Amino acid sequence: MKKTHIALAVATLALCSAGLAEAANDEPITPIKPAANINLGQVELGKKLYFDPRLSKSGFISCNSCHNLSLGGTDNIPTSIGDKWQQGPINAPTVLNSSLNLAQFWDGRAADLKAQAGGPIANPGEMGFTHDLAISVLQSIPGYVREFKQVFGADKIEIGDVTAAIAEFEKTLVTPNSRFDQWLLGRSDALTADELAGYNLFKNAGCVACHNGEAVGGNSYQKLGIVEPYKTTSGAEGRAAVTGDDADRFNFKVPTLRNVELTYPYFHDGAANTLTEAVDIMGRLQLGRKFSASENAKIVAFLKTLTGKQPSFLLPILPPSSDATPRPTPFGK
Amino acid sequence: MKKTHIALAVATLALCSAGLAEAANDEPITPIKPAANINLGQVELGKKLYFDPRLSKSGFISCNSCHNLSLGGTDNIPTSIGDKWQQGPINAPTVLNSSLNLAQFWDGRAADLKAQAGGPIANPGEMGFTHDLAISVLQSIPGYVREFKQVFGADKIEIGDVTAAIAEFEKTLVTPNSRFDQWLLGRSDALTADELAGYNLFKNAGCVACHNGEAVGGNSYQKLGIVEPYKTTSGAEGRAAVTGDDADRFNFKVPTLRNVELTYPYFHDGAANTLTEAVDIMGRLQLGRKFSASENAKIVAFLKTLTGKQPSFLLPILPPSSDATPRPTPFGK
Repeated sequence: MKKTHIALAVATLALCSAGLAEAANDEPITPIKPAANINLGQVELGKKLYFDPRLSKSGFISCNSCHNLSLGGTDNIPTSIGDKWQQGPINAPTVLNSSLNLAQFWDGRAADLKAQAGGPIANPGEMGFTHDLAISVLQSIPGYVREFKQVFGADKIEIGDVTAAIAEFEKTLVTPNSRFDQWLLGRSDALTADELAGYNLFKNAGCVACHNGEAVGGNSYQKLGIVEPYKTTSGAEGRAAVTGDDADRFNFKVPTLRNVELTYPYFHDGAANTLTEAVDIMGRLQLGRKFSASENAKIVAFLKTLTGKQPSFLLPILPPSSDATPRPTPFGK
Repeated sequence: MKKTHIALAVATLALCSAGLAEAANDEPITPIKPAANINLGQVELGKKLYFDPRLSKSGFISCNSCHNLSLGGTDNIPTSIGDKWQQGPINAPTVLNSSLNLAQFWDGRAADLKAQAGGPIANPGEMGFTHDLAISVLQSIPGYVREFKQVFGADKIEIGDVTAAIAEFEKTLVTPNSRFDQWLLGRSDALTADELAGYNLFKNAGCVACHNGEAVGGNSYQKLGIVEPYKTTSGAEGRAAVTGDDADRFNFKVPTLRNVELTYPYFHDGAANTLTEAVDIMGRLQLGRKFSASENAKIVAFLKTLTGKQPSFLLPILPPSSDATPRPTPFGK
């Protein structure tokens, strides 16, 4: 009872000082909007492709293996497992809200989701296949041939249509209606006093300089390790791998903090297991600020209010292979 | 038009000679009944566990990895991929309708689904974990602790409750309403003339001696290679591994033929890629009969009418790990 009273009092004070209507308008974070301009035929087809391990050499790895929609759109391991259990070089970013990113991959080497979707299929360390082989598999599956014809109007399946359909499905994977967004939209009791205090700290300490906008990140490249260098065994170079400019070394796309409660471990090398650890490291390395345990806990409490409505859809049932379908080769060369 | 006429004529003849009412009663295959006596709390919890890769050492492999419900409840590769990409010794049997089996695994070494569910978690070649470690993971996840308490009434999670919940979910994975079952239940136009001819061949040639009942198999152990020996590089011994009796060598549980269109490749070693091949081999080795191409095609057409309603449910969203959750170890020892 007492606790609730205090929480309400603090929340009320916060609202009084900020003014409810302006709160939402003036905030550096904006509510996630539900997906719009969606082609539902492409979404349903793309959803099947997203879950189909036949797009990999082994027949075992699908998009959902590393961007698992039961687990916040990621795999919750430091770096992903690829064909033949190869260890990936970098932490799998969440697919949730990835349509809001300025570009895809940690180094932004793909301009958009469509350009990204083709990457892992043909990456020898990930799905280990080729686009030609993936197409020959899909073209041999009557259920897919019919659905591609229905959606794209052509008899011949093209890789560009495959990646367009996957990207269209991914556009639906936004997560609106988090408690924080409810607060932004005017539900003043959506946050506790601690969560609100955490948000104010997040703003005042400067986290918001990089983590802002609809995705609370994802809209700029920033150097990791501004005040202190970031120590890692990871060989990932960041943006320099794309631009060839040494000044871009260790520049990474700022990850979204939406659903960050679900997307552990953190950073491009997946080295931080907990939000407490991640907030502490970010404070010291990026802002030159050592958060106290109490400050850290409040920021973490705020971050957990960014968990939104997770994707909700029926598990797709995939069309069966035909006698003509090339079989996967999980073992052997 | 002509084709339809002939089909109808043949179907009508078949019905006349058999008599519709008796048809269903006299047939050696019986329709699948929807699941009954189901505990929905256990189902919802078991569904989450079934999809949760945190029950594996790597954090990458779940029950659904090898018994993929998007793919007919199996993985569609000859033998499964386990922890660190180990090659499994045997073809993953479908989980669909597995509640109808007389026992679980190809050699029947688990009495029921509950006994089966614990096996892969602790098998070093499959999920590579231990029951104790799996429990310590689940017990550290607040969302699971609450749900286990709600469903089983205890604060402490027990492995027996984990496997009971998974088994309860699996009991729901029956596939009623196949076209063949519709025909059994009186919809006389549910099968084409070829499919019906295939069914009659299936009965008359003797396939039905082993493949009968609700699951069209799954209710007896039989020797593979009665007339001619079965040639394989697989070391699986069959029932002898359980009974220790050499007479049981190469005795395997007869697989269900329900949804067999989806569960390729076939046999305990996954050596047959197509139904055509499987029917040919079964005819020669088990029955001493070489089916003509036309006979084979009819039997295959019949088998494809056994595809039933696939499981239909929302992709489960899993409760997040806490700071205390032991992290998976996909690489290293």
